[in-house]
Amino acid sequence: MVDWHHLSDGERALLERLFWTGGLSRGDLAASVDFSKSKANMAIASLLGRELIEEGGVQPSTGGRRPELLRLSHGMGVLAAIDIGATSIDVALLAPDMTLIDHRSEAADVHAGAPLVFARVRNLLRQMRERHDIAAGRVLGIGVGVPGPVAFDSGMLVNPPLLPGWETFSIRDCLAEEYAAPVFVDNDVNIMALGTHWRLRGQLRNFLVIKIGTGIGCGIICHGAVYRGTDGSAGDVGHICVDPHGPLCHCGNAGCVEAMAAGPAIARMAEAAAHAGESALLKELLDRNGVLSPMDLGNASRAGDAAANAIVQQAGGWIGRMLAAVVNFFNPSHIFIGGGVAKVGPLFLASIRQSVYQRSLALSTRHLDIQYVPQVESAGVIGAGVMAVQETMLAGPERR
Amino acid sequence: MVDWHHLSDGERALLERLFWTGGLSRGDLAASVDFSKSKANMAIASLLGRELIEEGGVQPSTGGRRPELLRLSHGMGVLAAIDIGATSIDVALLAPDMTLIDHRSEAADVHAGAPLVFARVRNLLRQMRERHDIAAGRVLGIGVGVPGPVAFDSGMLVNPPLLPGWETFSIRDCLAEEYAAPVFVDNDVNIMALGTHWRLRGQLRNFLVIKIGTGIGCGIICHGAVYRGTDGSAGDVGHICVDPHGPLCHCGNAGCVEAMAAGPAIARMAEAAAHAGESALLKELLDRNGVLSPMDLGNASRAGDAAANAIVQQAGGWIGRMLAAVVNFFNPSHIFIGGGVAKVGPLFLASIRQSVYQRSLALSTRHLDIQYVPQVESAGVIGAGVMAVQETMLAGPERR
Repeated sequence: MVDWHHLSDGERALLERLFWTGGLSRGDLAASVDFSKSKANMAIASLLGRELIEEGGVQPSTGGRRPELLRLSHGMGVLAAIDIGATSIDVALLAPDMTLIDHRSEAADVHAGAPLVFARVRNLLRQMRERHDIAAGRVLGIGVGVPGPVAFDSGMLVNPPLLPGWETFSIRDCLAEEYAAPVFVDNDVNIMALGTHWRLRGQLRNFLVIKIGTGIGCGIICHGAVYRGTDGSAGDVGHICVDPHGPLCHCGNAGCVEAMAAGPAIARMAEAAAHAGESALLKELLDRNGVLSPMDLGNASRAGDAAANAIVQQAGGWIGRMLAAVVNFFNPSHIFIGGGVAKVGPLFLASIRQSVYQRSLALSTRHLDIQYVPQVESAGVIGAGVMAVQETMLAGPERR
Repeated sequence: MVDWHHLSDGERALLERLFWTGGLSRGDLAASVDFSKSKANMAIASLLGRELIEEGGVQPSTGGRRPELLRLSHGMGVLAAIDIGATSIDVALLAPDMTLIDHRSEAADVHAGAPLVFARVRNLLRQMRERHDIAAGRVLGIGVGVPGPVAFDSGMLVNPPLLPGWETFSIRDCLAEEYAAPVFVDNDVNIMALGTHWRLRGQLRNFLVIKIGTGIGCGIICHGAVYRGTDGSAGDVGHICVDPHGPLCHCGNAGCVEAMAAGPAIARMAEAAAHAGESALLKELLDRNGVLSPMDLGNASRAGDAAANAIVQQAGGWIGRMLAAVVNFFNPSHIFIGGGVAKVGPLFLASIRQSVYQRSLALSTRHLDIQYVPQVESAGVIGAGVMAVQETMLAGPERR
């Protein structure tokens, strides 16, 4: 086990630069932290000696000799990443530079309860380790994303609406039976935001990731770091009101965006259109399957069905109205849209954009870019891996 | 002129601790920055030698010898603070520890134009300096708050709705004719948030200051620092929609909270109630003055007038509805309410609170505290002074 307490602040700063950039030449690394040449060289020598970094990989040359890249050493150990969805579990092993060593995604039902789900998670992890001959003691840190509110310091879920009963289950204690590594738990959308942040090399300082599925959540990167708020509930945008005269939400208030434009609401609107005879195509899909999913609606919309298009535009418009309020308040540079419902098609993104640009102040949208989450398939496990590295290796002593 | 470039990171960290705490004993200062004893002592000696800090003041003893406090040296110079309101100018000179040396507040009309307003500002500053025998060269930094959107890096206003014509006036160039000190400009509500942050000794990490006057604006402290957003427009909450079926706003959208609950909207509602015969008291005030102000409404409300109370409750409810959206997104620990309209009375604050607690998620409001801005009279000039110190003395070389 590496003892991170023995790192100096300078050494930690170098590791952090290498982690976020994916690798730098000696010269670029020293320059990126504003150290004197001798201080940088001493810290680099110390990290090389302790096998925390290694030379390897060659940078594309701009002429002259190609400089060797320094990077985080693969020899120091691995990170385990776990991303629990409402209907899936993803488990991965990653090298310290976030190279995927192995990644398994399986269907799962969180209603089976946390003990069963985590028994499967531990099995999957064990199989992966055996396949790659990695002992449990080589796991440096474990990051876990869950689809519900988390008290970050304790790692416990807090009244999770989609995960009844999980609030009494300690993910930390369960994993501690097999791993000595520290375990960090956060909600899935913060994890997705962190994964996106890392993919973009930490270059965006203030942006949002919106996940639209059964619920609607938002991950916030502010001043270059995940922002969790006072109680860990920051980004809980699903219950922002978009129409005080709108339908009642399960939270007790009227017109919450989640009650009007998340997956279940969209499916309900599609079924209503089918029953009302507004769309032969939706009717046919409903008759065949007994229910309609947001994906069915997306397929109908892509096939040019007018009623489906109207529903997609309406839902996108409501989400855009919620985001307009958030944009006026937060003035982000980017909003990335993800989650299952984001896949209903390009008209959905276009409707969100139109609504945001219409309802936000001109100054707030001058540089605003709204697009899909990049490389969404592995954003969850990458995000959980990034959290594990940040909290284990890069956090100063006051954080641990 | 002090050369801040010669400060080491360690020395800067010590100055920062002394600035935010108001003074610490040697032992507490060294402990607060996690330096070794020898490194702390060396940095303290260096700062004492350069007369940037001084010994003075005695801490309340907890028994034993009373330790002498270290604090920022009054000898190093002064800060100038300027707070421009829509109808007032405040000018102050402050010691580096934010002791007010002199403070003048005068009525002013920003429509007279920036050159005239700043001619008065420079006059007031010069008179103050003469009164206290302080040469222009002793001014270390100048902080300026203005009631409009500011591009922080350039210090220029951007399309300020309340300050037509000011966008072509360089406050920096104007003050540079008399002062060599760097000039920093920000909008009034960021300044008020920063002043509040300093008053609270920097102990709150994530909170909001809402200013309700002719418009509605919000200053954001996030991760312990002012958050300005991508284009400097963060906190522009006045155009968040609280009712899509509401009245048209001058921005072109319907139901903006500013169009429904800021000063002019409140005065309009009061006048309508007077004309409709709903309140004898408001009618009497209207007949006497020809117009009604938010203050008239507040006086009627405090006198128990039912129509006035209904208007105050309605306006507070709309502001609370906007804040509920912001609370769900940002999960702050505190919201401080300030600005002229905040003075309409306790029923206003109570209505805001009720509306926020009703419309926000329980988890987001578990620790939420909503109250008035503390010591609001000097929050503006203190905030401008804090900004001047932060940007001049405490910012690392990459910031200047």
